Amino acid sequence: MAQAYFNQGLHEKPARFEHFFRENPNYGDHRAGYCVNAGLNTFLDWLKGAEPTTDDINYLRDLSGSSGSRLFGTEFLDWLSNRDPFSELTVRAVPEGRIVHPNEPVTVVEGPLALAQLVETPLLNHINYQILIATRAARIAAAGEGKLLLEFGMRRAHEKGGNSGARAAMIGGADFSSNTAASRMLGYPPKGTHAHSFVQAYLALGKSELEAFQAFARAYPDDCILLVDTVDTLHSGVPNAIEVFKELRAEGHEPVGIRLDSGDLAHLAVRSAKLLNEAGFPEVSIVLSNQLDELVLRQILEQIRSEAPDYGLELEALIERLVYGVGTRLITSAGDSSLGGVYKLVAIKKGRDWKPVLKLSETPEKVPIPGRKNLYRLYDYRGRATADLLTAPEEEVHEQRSLFLQHPYREQSWRELSPEDIGEVEPLLATYLCEGKLLREGETMEKFRERCQNDLQRLAPGVKRVLNPHYYHVSISSKIWELKQDLVQGYGN
Amino acid sequence: MAQAYFNQGLHEKPARFEHFFRENPNYGDHRAGYCVNAGLNTFLDWLKGAEPTTDDINYLRDLSGSSGSRLFGTEFLDWLSNRDPFSELTVRAVPEGRIVHPNEPVTVVEGPLALAQLVETPLLNHINYQILIATRAARIAAAGEGKLLLEFGMRRAHEKGGNSGARAAMIGGADFSSNTAASRMLGYPPKGTHAHSFVQAYLALGKSELEAFQAFARAYPDDCILLVDTVDTLHSGVPNAIEVFKELRAEGHEPVGIRLDSGDLAHLAVRSAKLLNEAGFPEVSIVLSNQLDELVLRQILEQIRSEAPDYGLELEALIERLVYGVGTRLITSAGDSSLGGVYKLVAIKKGRDWKPVLKLSETPEKVPIPGRKNLYRLYDYRGRATADLLTAPEEEVHEQRSLFLQHPYREQSWRELSPEDIGEVEPLLATYLCEGKLLREGETMEKFRERCQNDLQRLAPGVKRVLNPHYYHVSISSKIWELKQDLVQGYGN
Repeated sequence: MAQAYFNQGLHEKPARFEHFFRENPNYGDHRAGYCVNAGLNTFLDWLKGAEPTTDDINYLRDLSGSSGSRLFGTEFLDWLSNRDPFSELTVRAVPEGRIVHPNEPVTVVEGPLALAQLVETPLLNHINYQILIATRAARIAAAGEGKLLLEFGMRRAHEKGGNSGARAAMIGGADFSSNTAASRMLGYPPKGTHAHSFVQAYLALGKSELEAFQAFARAYPDDCILLVDTVDTLHSGVPNAIEVFKELRAEGHEPVGIRLDSGDLAHLAVRSAKLLNEAGFPEVSIVLSNQLDELVLRQILEQIRSEAPDYGLELEALIERLVYGVGTRLITSAGDSSLGGVYKLVAIKKGRDWKPVLKLSETPEKVPIPGRKNLYRLYDYRGRATADLLTAPEEEVHEQRSLFLQHPYREQSWRELSPEDIGEVEPLLATYLCEGKLLREGETMEKFRERCQNDLQRLAPGVKRVLNPHYYHVSISSKIWELKQDLVQGYGN
Repeated sequence: MAQAYFNQGLHEKPARFEHFFRENPNYGDHRAGYCVNAGLNTFLDWLKGAEPTTDDINYLRDLSGSSGSRLFGTEFLDWLSNRDPFSELTVRAVPEGRIVHPNEPVTVVEGPLALAQLVETPLLNHINYQILIATRAARIAAAGEGKLLLEFGMRRAHEKGGNSGARAAMIGGADFSSNTAASRMLGYPPKGTHAHSFVQAYLALGKSELEAFQAFARAYPDDCILLVDTVDTLHSGVPNAIEVFKELRAEGHEPVGIRLDSGDLAHLAVRSAKLLNEAGFPEVSIVLSNQLDELVLRQILEQIRSEAPDYGLELEALIERLVYGVGTRLITSAGDSSLGGVYKLVAIKKGRDWKPVLKLSETPEKVPIPGRKNLYRLYDYRGRATADLLTAPEEEVHEQRSLFLQHPYREQSWRELSPEDIGEVEPLLATYLCEGKLLREGETMEKFRERCQNDLQRLAPGVKRVLNPHYYHVSISSKIWELKQDLVQGYGN
C-alpha cells in the first residue's frame, strides 16, 4: 500500500488513523463491562527504533513477485530508507491505566499517509494484547476483593508475549509476577514459590516432605512459602509446614505462607487456616493457585464464607490472608483470547481541509465514527463517570454548557445534560509523540496502576459487575452525527 | 529451588524431566484429536544463549527478601555464573512437525537437577504455544481441504508471540504468512493484500474505487489481489476489479485474485466466481478472510457446494481457486488459548541408580507416568499409526515380537499385538542436544512441514475428524505399569 501511495504521489498526504475496539471482551459465560488501556508506551518504545535499517531496505529490495521481478522499486525504497516514523508521526492517546470503552479512539496517529499506514500492525500488535490482559487482571483483582494477586502465567503464555502480558497484568491490578525477566524490566521484585518437583526429588532420594520443607526454609528463612499438596495437604503438607514454621520462628524468622495448588481450594484453605491458627500462625498467607480466574475466585470466596463459620474461623481475617497466583487464564485471557481492536483511516487532508473518511458496513454498529474527533469523559456531581463523548475538533465542551449526547447509530436514542448534571468534563486524549519528541514524563508503572484504581473507583458499580455488567454510554455530538449521515448519503459516489 | 538444592548439595544430581501435555486442545464446541509438535528448535536456539551474563548474576545478587537481606548467597551465585545449561543438559525430543499425543514425552531434558529445573519455564513457554498453534493450523488446513492457507494474525497475536505463532502455523499447514518479520526469519516470502483504508483514502480524496484499484494494479501488475468489499462487493468491487484485470491482461499481466472480507463469504464467493468466469477470469483466486476457523471453513465449503450448482458453476474448479486468510482465531487459538503442557521430574539418580519419581493426584489420569521411558509409534500393515507405546529403557521393542499394550491407568484395559499385527515399530525420540553439541542437521521448515503431512496421512481418519474425533491410544508396557503400581504403594513413606 505504501508503494502504491508513493507511485501516485499520495504518500505524504496528512492522514489520521484511530485505534479503537468495537466490543469489550466476551469470555463466553461472562463478559467485561469496561477495558483498561495498556501497551501505549511499549508501542512508543518500539516506534522509537522503527526507522528502517539498511538491512531492512535490502531485504525489501530482494523480494520478488510472481513474475520474478522486484516487488519494490528503487525510488520507493530510497524514499522509505530516509523516513523515520518516530520523527514524522504524531501520537495522541488515552493514558495507560485509564478505563476505556468500545468505539472511542484509544490511540490516534496523524502523519504522512504511507508512514501512518505502515505502523498499523505494530500498533495493534502491541496495544490490543495489553488492553486484553490489563482488563482481565482488573476483573480478577476485583473478584479477589483486592487481596494480593500474583501473575504466574509465563509457562502457558504465547511465548515472548508473556513479558508484555505481565506488564499489562500489573497495570490492571496484579501486584507482582513470577516472570523474572518482566519483573526485572519493570523494576519490581519477582514473586513465586517452589514447585512439586522440589518435594518429589526429596521423596525419590529416600527423604521426606519435611526434609524438603526444611531445606527450602533454610534457603529462604524470611521468605518461606511452602507448597503443601504434593503428598497429602491436610495430613502431611500442612502439619509438616507447621513444624518447619515453628523451627523458623525459634530461630527468629517469621514464615510467609503456604500454597495450595490442587483439590477443593476453598475447603482446603479453611481447613489449613484452622490448623495454622491452632499452631500459632494466624498471619501466614494462604496462596491459592490452579486455573483461577474471576469466576473461580468468586466461587471460592462464596464457599469460604459458607464454610469458615463451621470451623469457628473469623471470616475477614481468613480472607485477608489469601493470596492468588493466577496463570494461564489471565495471561492468555482464556475464553476470549483477543481484543478486536482495529486501526482505521478516519480523515485525510486535501489541500487545507481534512476530509472525513467513511467505511460502510451492512451492520450499523460496525460503521466507524468518521472524521477527526476529541474525546471527553463526563462525571456527575457524585464524581461518577456517566458517559464518554466524541465531539468535532471545533466544538467547545466544558462544564458550563449543556451537552447533547447522541447514540452512535440509533437516531432516536439521545439525552441532554444541563450544566447542573455535569460535575466535571475531562479531555481523555493526551499528546505522547510530536515532532520526534516523546511527551511522557512521569509515565511509571505506579502511575498506571494508580490511574486504573482511580478510574475504577469512579466507574458505576453496575458497569463493574463481573457477571452481566451494565453498558457504559459512549455518545457522539450532534455535529458528528450529522457528519456521519452526510457521508453515508454520498458514500461510494 | 536451585539455591535450596545447591545448599543441600543436590544441585548436580543427574535428573530427568519430561515435557508432556495431558489433553488435546478443547475449543469448547469442538476439540482436537491429535497435536502437531513445534517449537523445539526455537527453544534450543534460546538455550544456546542461556548462559547467565554478569548482568544477570548482578541482578540476582541485588535481589533482597522480606527482611531486606539478600535472597541469593555468594557461593550459589558463583556456581551459577559458571554454569551453562546448553553444554550440560541433554535434550531428546520428538522431532518438530511430528504428530504427538497426550501423556507421552514430547521433550526430555536430562542433566544436573538445578540446571534442568531452571529451564522449565523457558521450555514450556517456547514449546506449549507453538504446539497449540501448529495443531490449530493443521485442523484449519484440513477443514480448508488443502487449499492455500495464509496466516494473517499479527495484529491480534499476543504481541511478539505472533512471530513464533507464524512459524508454528507454517509447520502445521499454513503456506505463507502476512507477518513480514516472521516470513523473513523463516526464509519465506510474506503474502498479504491491501486494506480497506486504501480504497477509503481514494474515496475521501474525491476519487473512485476503480481509481484505487488501478493504482494498486500499477504498483503490483503481476501480484495484484484486490479487496472488493469496501463499497459494495457485487455491484462495485467485483465489476471494478474485472475492469482492472482486463487492463492488466491487455498489458501482458495476469491478475492474481480478489479478497472478500465481510458479508456472506460463501454466497459472495459463488457470485464473484460467476462474474469473474463470465469476464474471462476463471483462474483468479478468491481469497476469503474474516474470523475464519475450521468450523467456519467447513460451513463455507458446505454452503458453496450447495449454492454453486444454482449458478451453473463447476464445483471443483471453484473450490480449487479458494485461498483462506486466517488471522485471530488461528494465532490465538480462539476457544482454547493454551496448551496445558507440563514439565515434570520423572527420575533422579542416586548413586548409580535412576530412582523413578512419582506425583500422586486425586484423579488417576493426572498421575504422570514415572521413570525414564522410551517412546515408540506402532503402525499396522496398512501403514496406519495404531498406537504409541511407552516402555522402560531396558525393554526391547521391535517388529518381530509381540507387544503388550496397557492403558496408563485402567488396569483392565489392555491388548496384545502379535508380530502379524505390526507393520512397523518406530522410535519417536531423537537426541537434539548432547555435550554442548546440537544434533539437528537438515532441520528445515520444509522438513517440518513434510513430517506433519506424512504423519497426518498415516493417522486414522477417525482421529483426524474435525468434530468429535476418536481417541488415539497411548499405552504403557506392563513393566512401566508395575513400576507405577509399586511407587503408588510406597508413596510418601
